[in-house]
Order: sequence, then structure tokens, then C-alpha cells
Amino acid sequence: MPRINPERVLSDLRTLATFGAYKTGVHRPTLSDQDVAAREWFAGRMREAGLDAEIDGVANILGRSRATGRKALSGSHLESQNHAGWLDGALGCVYALEAARAIAEDPATADLGVDVAVFCDEEGHFGSFMGSRSFVGVLDESEIDTAVARATGMTMREALTRAGWNGRPRHLIDPSRYDAFFEAHIEQGDTLEHSGRKIGVVTAIVAIWQYRITVLGEQNHAGTTSMTRRRDAGREMIQLLASIDARFQSVAGERSVWTTGRIDLDPGEKSIIPGQAQALFQLRDADPAVLARMEDALREEVAKADDAGRCDISVERLSASTPAIMDARLQDALDAAAEMNAPGMHIRMPSGAGHDAQWLARKLPAAMLFVPSIGGISHHWTENTSDEDIVLGSQVFADAIVEALRRN
Amino acid sequence: MPRINPERVLSDLRTLATFGAYKTGVHRPTLSDQDVAAREWFAGRMREAGLDAEIDGVANILGRSRATGRKALSGSHLESQNHAGWLDGALGCVYALEAARAIAEDPATADLGVDVAVFCDEEGHFGSFMGSRSFVGVLDESEIDTAVARATGMTMREALTRAGWNGRPRHLIDPSRYDAFFEAHIEQGDTLEHSGRKIGVVTAIVAIWQYRITVLGEQNHAGTTSMTRRRDAGREMIQLLASIDARFQSVAGERSVWTTGRIDLDPGEKSIIPGQAQALFQLRDADPAVLARMEDALREEVAKADDAGRCDISVERLSASTPAIMDARLQDALDAAAEMNAPGMHIRMPSGAGHDAQWLARKLPAAMLFVPSIGGISHHWTENTSDEDIVLGSQVFADAIVEALRRN
Repeated sequence: MPRINPERVLSDLRTLATFGAYKTGVHRPTLSDQDVAAREWFAGRMREAGLDAEIDGVANILGRSRATGRKALSGSHLESQNHAGWLDGALGCVYALEAARAIAEDPATADLGVDVAVFCDEEGHFGSFMGSRSFVGVLDESEIDTAVARATGMTMREALTRAGWNGRPRHLIDPSRYDAFFEAHIEQGDTLEHSGRKIGVVTAIVAIWQYRITVLGEQNHAGTTSMTRRRDAGREMIQLLASIDARFQSVAGERSVWTTGRIDLDPGEKSIIPGQAQALFQLRDADPAVLARMEDALREEVAKADDAGRCDISVERLSASTPAIMDARLQDALDAAAEMNAPGMHIRMPSGAGHDAQWLARKLPAAMLFVPSIGGISHHWTENTSDEDIVLGSQVFADAIVEALRRN
Repeated sequence: MPRINPERVLSDLRTLATFGAYKTGVHRPTLSDQDVAAREWFAGRMREAGLDAEIDGVANILGRSRATGRKALSGSHLESQNHAGWLDGALGCVYALEAARAIAEDPATADLGVDVAVFCDEEGHFGSFMGSRSFVGVLDESEIDTAVARATGMTMREALTRAGWNGRPRHLIDPSRYDAFFEAHIEQGDTLEHSGRKIGVVTAIVAIWQYRITVLGEQNHAGTTSMTRRRDAGREMIQLLASIDARFQSVAGERSVWTTGRIDLDPGEKSIIPGQAQALFQLRDADPAVLARMEDALREEVAKADDAGRCDISVERLSASTPAIMDARLQDALDAAAEMNAPGMHIRMPSGAGHDAQWLARKLPAAMLFVPSIGGISHHWTENTSDEDIVLGSQVFADAIVEALRRN
């Protein structure tokens, strides 16, 4: 089996962390100067590895192997969340590159090929999975035309033009070329750390169902409007959210999560009864039946609150994705590679976060490997994984790809 | 008894409504060009009424009567909330001026005097009751120095300089000059309309106790952080606010009101578990014992939530005013004048809103009269009172002042 080069893996990751370095993490928004430089550098590293690497019209990088045998596709993303960690995305890109290198360097596996892909904007600075959706053929040019960076207001067209990539043809997946897609990622939670394991084998990427709850009351003076007369949108929103949370204790699945990310009371002044309240509410689970049960409960609680209170209450579903089930045979390959390198130290688990792999799974058998996040920290500059765990993960990842291609 | 001039009252109010006219209301923030012009015009109307009127260094106007007998002080404010009603404040100023005029015009009462006061910034664009606090001697120059308009960022010094009033001496109350302070105002609620009455005789101006509740949790990924592991500041804030509201159903007084005016979840993104939550919470009641009981319950609920949950929860009292009790003898004078003009159509009630009278009550026996607000609407450009009710209120107000000065 191929041996990965630990120094090369860590060195590549540390070099990537210099592009937009922020404290011990990185600030590398999609198509920022730092992100553009990181992409150019990484494309260069692909070419040094013998891959034919090209950056396309949506800033995706595809590095094609010249190997003649069976091939896998592997990769992740290079941009970061704002002021976030050095490994989120970058780890999956470097693991893919290292697998390509190690497999090519070992005469016993040199016939196998790994194409390395870097998908643009997985972190959603401009849109939703622009890069991986482009690659699987579900992104129209018009969506790129209208995409604007939330933080800076710059259009994606302008950012692509600045980078010199606007107007280039976009890479499109050739499913006949690949047996499998593999993506590695930090876990972004503490399941591995908590269970003392080193490798997570992802069973499914959960679906996310998102809602906006709106309560319409009557804005009024907080001193002169009696409790019986007021139609307090904030008060009814609080009562509703508390009742939804209580109800979910019984209807949710074991691994379901639900989050109220935002509450806006209008006008938000201390002496004014809110005339309107809005909340963003989100459910995640890998089982559509569980999600449907939770949505039913959510709608029932909203209807009850609307009947019982003095405000008009409604809920609108903003989006509902489907869970992406990881390929069973590729999960077995990851288990086998993990068992070989770290016996008993692997565990199967769903991914609570979205990943490029959920889009690739529409076209190819797909799999994901997780390495531990220290303290379960994610989307923060203190995110980290020990060097030892990084190196172990890289070896398991390369071995799993070989296992999958050989077994096929 | 003096007869007020209905046309003069309505005409003065309609003229004032032209300064900063906005739809059927006014937009006349403190020391805006429109507010400065309204003050100049009103000072002129005072002089036409035979009052010695001067605008002082904090934009208060005091119009002194030349009468030789007993005197009352009366007035309110001229600036408005943003895009608000034409009567809030203006009504009390015009009633005071009309009482001064009518009492001076009637030979039977011409010995009595009414000084008319217009207090600056009751609506709090720059600070808290700047004008009435200045007049009763509890506003330092340093507070004017640091006052900045919330909406525009202009300093109060700059605004006073633009108006030509900066540096003028400030009027200070001479309590020996007056037997009483009277202020009229629209009710800003629907107690009068709901009970079919025309005149409210205020018993007390409620106290306002304000709090900031803070929940400190841990910001994390809304997908990868399990429900048992997460320390969701938003979720614990919702549960706490719901439990406070439920608890208050039993501990609050009959006329107590409580309001959550603002909730901030940080960072407020749909896919991020809030690491911090803050809420502004307010209690109002005329009885300090009831307020203390409610505060105790609030603190108990906070302590319980802090013990039970996984976040750190605290509450900070931002301010606590004392109720301003209206003078019993002056309430009787208002009742008598109301009974004379509209038998059985008056009612005693607390004021849920703050008014300049609460500061004057520290120096003089004070009283307030309310007229109905159509639909209970306040702080909105649709605020209104029927012409008939405006005229009736003006007559009752003038009669009550005579009643109070004669009885003394």
C-alpha cells in the first residue's frame, strides 16, 4: 500500500494557512486576494504532483491524473469562513493531493489515478455550494451573474474578473471517468473526541430544513397599553419558541438538532411593544421521516399559538434539502483502511454539516472521512486537530481510495 | 369661570402641526429645524398672550404671567417622536397657553396667573427629560455637553448653537411663585375610549424599572453540535423569558405591564448556535411594592435558569424610577372641573407613560389631565383625538386651574 508523506501533508497545510493568516486560523473569504493566491499556489502544487490542473470559470480547480487505470475523484474547498480555522476545507484538499501523490509514487498502485478537485465557495460567501453545484451541472450562468458577496457587496463576476478567471469554461463532471468520490474533513463536532476515536466514517450528510416564523401584532406604547389589550408580537414569539422546544423533546430523533439562530423584534426599542417578530428556525436530521415528524409538530405548535394568542402567526419553509446517503461499499473501504491503521479507533456517524460531497453524491458513489476537532470547535480561528491525527487521517484516506479502486 | 376659545385652541394646534408635517402627524425631533421654528412661533404666541416669554440655554420656554395674584405653572413639550402624532406634547402646551389666555381675559379671574412652560426633549432624542430636569435643577451642564442625538449623531451643543440659544442662562423653577403644576396630555392608551369617558384624572405616573438580561453560552456549528452538548444562549433565553412571563401572571399587580422590547442573538445567523443572547426587559407600575415583588420574581427565575441550564445567565438593572404621586387636592380640582363640564364622564387612572410632570412633582403639587386617544394609538402619525374632546378637555383644564388657585 502507498505510504503518505507526513511532512509533506503538514507542510502543505501550514503553507495554506499563511494565505490570510488570522491568529492561529485563517480569514480567507471566497475570491479574496488571499483566496485567489491560495488557489494559484495549490494549482501549482497539483502540477508539481503530475496532475493537469486548471482553474475554471467559477474558480473550481480540477487536477486530472494521467494514470491509465481506475480513478477516484477527491477534494474539498479552499476558502474559509470569516476568521475561522486553518483545516476546514484545506485538510480535504491536501488529503486528496497527498493521496494522488502517494498512490502515484508507489509502483504497486501507480496504475490507479486520483483526480483532485477544489470546489469554490462551499462556505457560501456568494451563494450556496456554487463550485460543487457547477461541477455536477446544476448551476446556471445566471446564478453566477447575480451572486454578490454578503460581507463586501462585490459581485462574483467582478471577483472572478479580478482573478482573471471570468468567462473561462467551467469543469463539468464526467461520471464515467470515476469509480468514487472521497472527501475528508474535520468533524466540526466532538463525537470522535468524546468517544476516543480517531476516524469517523460518514453514513449520511443530514438534510437541513429551514423556516421563518413571523408573528404580527400591534406596535404600541409599552407603558400605556395594558397587558390584556396589547398584541405583543415579541411575547407570543417567545411563548411559541418555548413550546416548540418543549414539544421537540419528544418528537425529535436521537441525533436531530434544532436551532433558533435569529430573533428580530420590530422596532426593538425598550419602551415599545414589538409590532412584529421574526425568527429563523432550522432542523437537521439524516432521516426524512424524522424531519417530516418534526415539521408536523412545528406547524401544529404554530397553529395552536395562532389560535390561542392575539397575534397572527405563520411559518414559511425557506428550504428543505434531502439527506445525502454515503455509499455502503465506500464506507466499508474506509472502515477497512481505518482498521488497518488504527484498529478499533473508527466509528460510523452522520455529518451534521453540509459538504461538497452531498452534491457529488448525485453523480458518483460518495464517501467522507472525518478526523477529530479538538474540543469540537468549528468555524472559529481556534479550530484545530493534532498533527498525529492529521497524519493518521491522511494515511487512512489514501488507503481507503486504493481499497475502493482495487475492490471494484 | 373663564371660557376657553375653541377656535383659538384648534387653530393653534393645527398651526403647530404644520411644523414638520408628516402624513396626518408630525416629524419634529428635538432641535430639528422644524422644532426650532415651532418653539420660536410658540414663544411669539405666548407674548401675544401677554406673557414674558424667553427661550433658555436648554431650549426650554418659560412664559411668565404679569398677574398679581396666585399663580399656577402649566405646560408640556413641543418636539415629537419620529413620524408621530400631532397632539403628543403640543396639546399640553396649547392647553396651558389657552388657560393663561382665558383666565386673563375673564375679569373674574384676571388676578390669577398661569405661567406657561415648554420643556425640551421630553421625547428623549438627546437624553432623558433634559428640559424638565433642567428646570427643577437636576441637570448639570456636563450632561448637555455630552448629549448626542441618537438618530443623527449631532451634539446637543451644536444643535443649540445652530438655534442661537447655546450659552443662554437656564430657567430654574421658583417654587414659591406657584401653587401647582398642571399638565395635559393625550392618554396614549384606550382606557378612556374603552370606558366611554372623556377626561382622565391621573393618580400617579408609574415607575419604570429596566433590565438587561444576558445569557452566555458557546457559539458553535448548528449542524455538528448535538443537543446535549450545545450551550445554546438563544434557547436558554427563550426558556427564561417564557418562564418569567408565566411567573408574572401571578405576581404582577392588576395594572402592571412588562415588555421584552429587544432580543439580540449573537451572531444571529441561521446555521450558528448563538453564543450570547441579550434582552431588554421593562416593568411598570405605580406601586413600588408591586415592582419590588416583580423584581424578586425576575431575579428568582434568572437564578433558577442559571442553575438548571448550561449557560451563564445574569440580569442587570439599568434604571429604576420612583412613581410620581399626583397631588390629592389637585386631583379633586380636576374632578370638580370635569364634573361641571361633563358630568360622570371622568375617571381616575394612573399614567403608564412618563411625563414632564413627574419631575415637576418633585418641587410642586402636580396634576395631570388626559383626553382620549382614538383607538388608543400613540407614537404613530395616526394618533388623534376628536375636536370635540380637545375642546372639552381645554375647558376642564382651565376650570381646574382656577378651582385649584381659588380653593388654596
